Amino acid sequence: MSEYTYLNDTTQNYDDGDSLQFGRLQRLRKLMRQHNLDALIVTRCDEHLSEYLPPNSERLAFITGFTGSAGTAVILNDEHIISKLKNKIIKDSNNDEVTLVNPAALFVDGRYTIQARIQTNNNLYDVFHYTKVKLEDWITSILGSHASIGIDLKCISYNRYIQIKEALHNYQIELVCTGNNLIDEIWLDKAPVHPSPALIFEDHLNGCPSIEKRKLIANILKERKLDLTIISSSESVNWLLNIRGRDVPNLPVVNSFAVVYSCGDMEWYVDLKKIPSSKITEFQHHFGNISYLDESKLTDLFSRLAKHKYSVYIDANNTNAWIIENLKKANVPLTFGQDLCEYPKACKNPIELAGMKSCHCKDAVAMCHFLAWLDHLTEKIIDGSIGTGSLEIIKNNNEATLSDQLFKFRSEQDDFIENSFDTISALGPNAAIIHYNHINLNRPRSLGKDPLYLVDSGGQYKEGTTDITRTVLVGPGLTEEMKERFTLVLKGMIALHLIKFPKGTYGSALDALARAPLWQHGLNYDHGTGHGVGHCLNVHEGPQSISSRSGQTPLVEGMITSIEPGYYKENEYGIRCENLGVVEVIHNSSFPNEMLTMVPITYVPFDIRLIKKEMLTDEEKRWINNYHTKVREIVKDHLSDLEKNWLLKATAAI
Amino acid sequence: MSEYTYLNDTTQNYDDGDSLQFGRLQRLRKLMRQHNLDALIVTRCDEHLSEYLPPNSERLAFITGFTGSAGTAVILNDEHIISKLKNKIIKDSNNDEVTLVNPAALFVDGRYTIQARIQTNNNLYDVFHYTKVKLEDWITSILGSHASIGIDLKCISYNRYIQIKEALHNYQIELVCTGNNLIDEIWLDKAPVHPSPALIFEDHLNGCPSIEKRKLIANILKERKLDLTIISSSESVNWLLNIRGRDVPNLPVVNSFAVVYSCGDMEWYVDLKKIPSSKITEFQHHFGNISYLDESKLTDLFSRLAKHKYSVYIDANNTNAWIIENLKKANVPLTFGQDLCEYPKACKNPIELAGMKSCHCKDAVAMCHFLAWLDHLTEKIIDGSIGTGSLEIIKNNNEATLSDQLFKFRSEQDDFIENSFDTISALGPNAAIIHYNHINLNRPRSLGKDPLYLVDSGGQYKEGTTDITRTVLVGPGLTEEMKERFTLVLKGMIALHLIKFPKGTYGSALDALARAPLWQHGLNYDHGTGHGVGHCLNVHEGPQSISSRSGQTPLVEGMITSIEPGYYKENEYGIRCENLGVVEVIHNSSFPNEMLTMVPITYVPFDIRLIKKEMLTDEEKRWINNYHTKVREIVKDHLSDLEKNWLLKATAAI
Repeated sequence: MSEYTYLNDTTQNYDDGDSLQFGRLQRLRKLMRQHNLDALIVTRCDEHLSEYLPPNSERLAFITGFTGSAGTAVILNDEHIISKLKNKIIKDSNNDEVTLVNPAALFVDGRYTIQARIQTNNNLYDVFHYTKVKLEDWITSILGSHASIGIDLKCISYNRYIQIKEALHNYQIELVCTGNNLIDEIWLDKAPVHPSPALIFEDHLNGCPSIEKRKLIANILKERKLDLTIISSSESVNWLLNIRGRDVPNLPVVNSFAVVYSCGDMEWYVDLKKIPSSKITEFQHHFGNISYLDESKLTDLFSRLAKHKYSVYIDANNTNAWIIENLKKANVPLTFGQDLCEYPKACKNPIELAGMKSCHCKDAVAMCHFLAWLDHLTEKIIDGSIGTGSLEIIKNNNEATLSDQLFKFRSEQDDFIENSFDTISALGPNAAIIHYNHINLNRPRSLGKDPLYLVDSGGQYKEGTTDITRTVLVGPGLTEEMKERFTLVLKGMIALHLIKFPKGTYGSALDALARAPLWQHGLNYDHGTGHGVGHCLNVHEGPQSISSRSGQTPLVEGMITSIEPGYYKENEYGIRCENLGVVEVIHNSSFPNEMLTMVPITYVPFDIRLIKKEMLTDEEKRWINNYHTKVREIVKDHLSDLEKNWLLKATAAI
Repeated sequence: MSEYTYLNDTTQNYDDGDSLQFGRLQRLRKLMRQHNLDALIVTRCDEHLSEYLPPNSERLAFITGFTGSAGTAVILNDEHIISKLKNKIIKDSNNDEVTLVNPAALFVDGRYTIQARIQTNNNLYDVFHYTKVKLEDWITSILGSHASIGIDLKCISYNRYIQIKEALHNYQIELVCTGNNLIDEIWLDKAPVHPSPALIFEDHLNGCPSIEKRKLIANILKERKLDLTIISSSESVNWLLNIRGRDVPNLPVVNSFAVVYSCGDMEWYVDLKKIPSSKITEFQHHFGNISYLDESKLTDLFSRLAKHKYSVYIDANNTNAWIIENLKKANVPLTFGQDLCEYPKACKNPIELAGMKSCHCKDAVAMCHFLAWLDHLTEKIIDGSIGTGSLEIIKNNNEATLSDQLFKFRSEQDDFIENSFDTISALGPNAAIIHYNHINLNRPRSLGKDPLYLVDSGGQYKEGTTDITRTVLVGPGLTEEMKERFTLVLKGMIALHLIKFPKGTYGSALDALARAPLWQHGLNYDHGTGHGVGHCLNVHEGPQSISSRSGQTPLVEGMITSIEPGYYKENEYGIRCENLGVVEVIHNSSFPNEMLTMVPITYVPFDIRLIKKEMLTDEEKRWINNYHTKVREIVKDHLSDLEKNWLLKATAAI
């Protein structure tokens, strides 16, 4: 754990109460008037546009109180403007009427509408689902032509910026860059940043020297007759250099930019305080010769590229608008396309795969410790033999204590760094909230009254990243409906482990196979079926995914994706089963075509008490029994005798 | 049949022998030199860009001999250029070496590579799969900078034109519009066009007055604050006006353009010789007031739009480059998007659906006549009891006579107009060629030696359009492998009739469900699973489809698609099962979500002699038996006693 201790854990409290929130908005509005802005757009992004942010980049949380991982606020400079408009009514995308109440709005996706309404002051912010009321429509329905809307170009992707700009342009509304970030100007008590050092990610972990990776990128540039690429994603830069860091919770990276030239040369734009001079020689041995430039020098790059008439390859979805606007101003010829690191990063090499499998074994042991502990805690309440004293013990446990207990078990594993995301520890109806987080909502729910518990969690290990969801029996009140729906979800997950598919298959083609068992009963789930997973990097990684909207990247050998169908009954319960699978070639000489399959690397029991056996085909039963046999082999030697007994029961053949 | 008699059946012979083909190329090259062109691109398109062309627009067939429905040729002006380059070798997309032999090349898709090689003179043309060797790469690998490539802008979509233009631009090669079509200038014996009159498509057939359809389009324009749209697709124009015609084989339309304004006004650009003045009043009663303009007046439109500063909505995939380039030159503001008729045309109204069902019953009767006839013809050769005399009779039948016999049975049905596409009548190994056409290849194959016969055919009826494929036993030599693979294909087809799916599901999500049974055995098929079908219009219709590349149009109530998985073993046999299904809402009050399903409208027996029952689930067996019961109900009263006996056997419960 030592060198991976997280340095910037400043534990900001964003939920400072309503008056504080009101004061912040007042100060911001004053500043907006000084800048002649009619409104300000605040995104949840920093200049690297990552899903995970350092605490001092949590500007959206600071100003709105909302802590979800995606959302955008628009704040009008005049707090009376809406009331002047007499509660203006607009039409949403379903043509339903929506009354605008507040002179500020927060736009979030379906995962976060409930959380955003709880976390924001509803006298300050209206909360909208971003497809039902579009940010652009909200602005144009309130503000007239010649209004000025401020935005920090560093905190929005170029493509999204252009989208908003063009929508507003049709109404003669101007989108202007604020220069400095206005939230930063009023965020006076922001904790100082302690630069956390860049860490070498050793060759026995990464499996491919940085110089080889740079050659690969350089060759692509050469083939396309382009001079260089600018890489903004910290995950890509860290993968490319085989380094890691501790700048961001849940994501072990050094935030930085890189430029790779078609000759293979590389410039690393990074806060130089993160590169201890004592380590430079060691770095050079690790990844060879590159140029180290302080991230503040990025500004000089644009004119230099223009001077040399260099042509630049760049990802307009993953690069902030400030960089691309500067390149455009300097007349640098641009070719847009996907970040060149993204695809090779997704195709894990043998060392990375071995690491992923190894950390999944450790993670399976931690999960089994936890599930055995939980089962012993709850067995009496499930079978109804509980006494009053024991009931008290059970009720002292809640979503937070369960999450902490699981973290404790994970922490005991070798090479564990931190959680790969905030644990979703959800009892009863809370599990129906897809991205539930007990920290964000009023109070954690206690064990004792709900039959089902959903736990979605994962770890960052030096060898890789894990992500697993299990839904287990923890209390009285289990119904036949719950068992039926659990079994349908499980059938969907098994379907994606059983399916064989040809090369060239997209994730979008497989999505329905996981849903079909639910669909046949008129049921569905409102999220994707699977996402890529990084290697000691982001737990959500592209370019592959399994969803109806998966892009044009086929699933190829060595890619890892989650498989996580679910079912959610609002206000009652939620079910999700999640394994990670690695795409492997099937060696079968009788097959005319080479086929692929997704082999599980997650090995933790599914709760067989929730399965309706008669709904499984023989093939599905065989799969479950073989899977549980493998679980036993992997974890049994790491468990106590008590836990081993639990394991035998939990993995008994059905 | 009377008014639908096809008027322009000039039966051109494109396969005029090598010397004729050589002479045409010589004349064309002379003309190219006069125009200072280094090369000419010849597409298989007319100005409406439809899949089906009038015979006198078959320019690609005239110059190359290739009669497939898609392909592009590039012809260099100097026939010695390639030999001067000493059989230049280039790399294809798999990085394999390809030797360029001829100074002209034909680029076709996977359906047509075999056919194109047979139909073209291989001393004149190289044939390439269009993704393996790209047309643009072929040009740039041969021609240097400042070369001039001619193209008729009227015969290519704007988007494809821009794609080629930009690829060539990077090599300083210029794409220039030839003005007149150079093929037309050397096609001296082209048959004259007899204008075929526009025909009223009555309200009891169309189900929605033209004026309502125009209002719908006008409202979309109003909502988007656009002044008008230009519609180039003849299918869209014919649907919009509720008219039909006989300009094109297999596609009962009047070729024409339309302009619809946001006020609902409409201009119809059509060869006015097709509008008999005696009929004008009748037309006015049928579809209300519109302006009739001769198609030659389209040129005046551009300046008029510019003068009025009108904003135009236009489909850049389905509009020829000549129109859009003219609009751009006139500085007309353009908004690009899908043809506004395409989506409402795909969602059939109740009258259209009733018509589709009715013509499918007639088509089922014709198919049963045919299959019963074929079974009686072949039963003795199948069971081995055949005598020499009967064998002779059987061998006198070949793919062509079978196709003719089927056409005869269809022709006997009320309101039959013509085939909806060239019948694929394929015995044995020919069925492994996905778009096989016995007319195009050397000689039709005779009955007698192959176990399997694949027949993919359809009809245009006044009430709608049909498309059906059956694979049946017709001779000795059936193997267990054939039965196994037939059953896998059938399972895939049944899967798409059984699946229930929520609103918003794309065709791309369902594609794998039809393939999964084959995938599990390492098998697949190299074509989409389903396409939309027009209503007395194009048998291939968008925007919906079922394939891994289906766009972002969900399947909605009233859409019709084919479901046609297959299996093809090269040089041995081919299997395909195809039904059309209509998307319907499932009325099930126990379903929390409204689900959709694809209900068959095709009712013709599947050959139960080819089914391995033990491979079907109980649910699949139930589906087949219920389906066959329904087939009996629909067709039995239209069959002779002999045919009824056949039907009882063919639809017996399995």
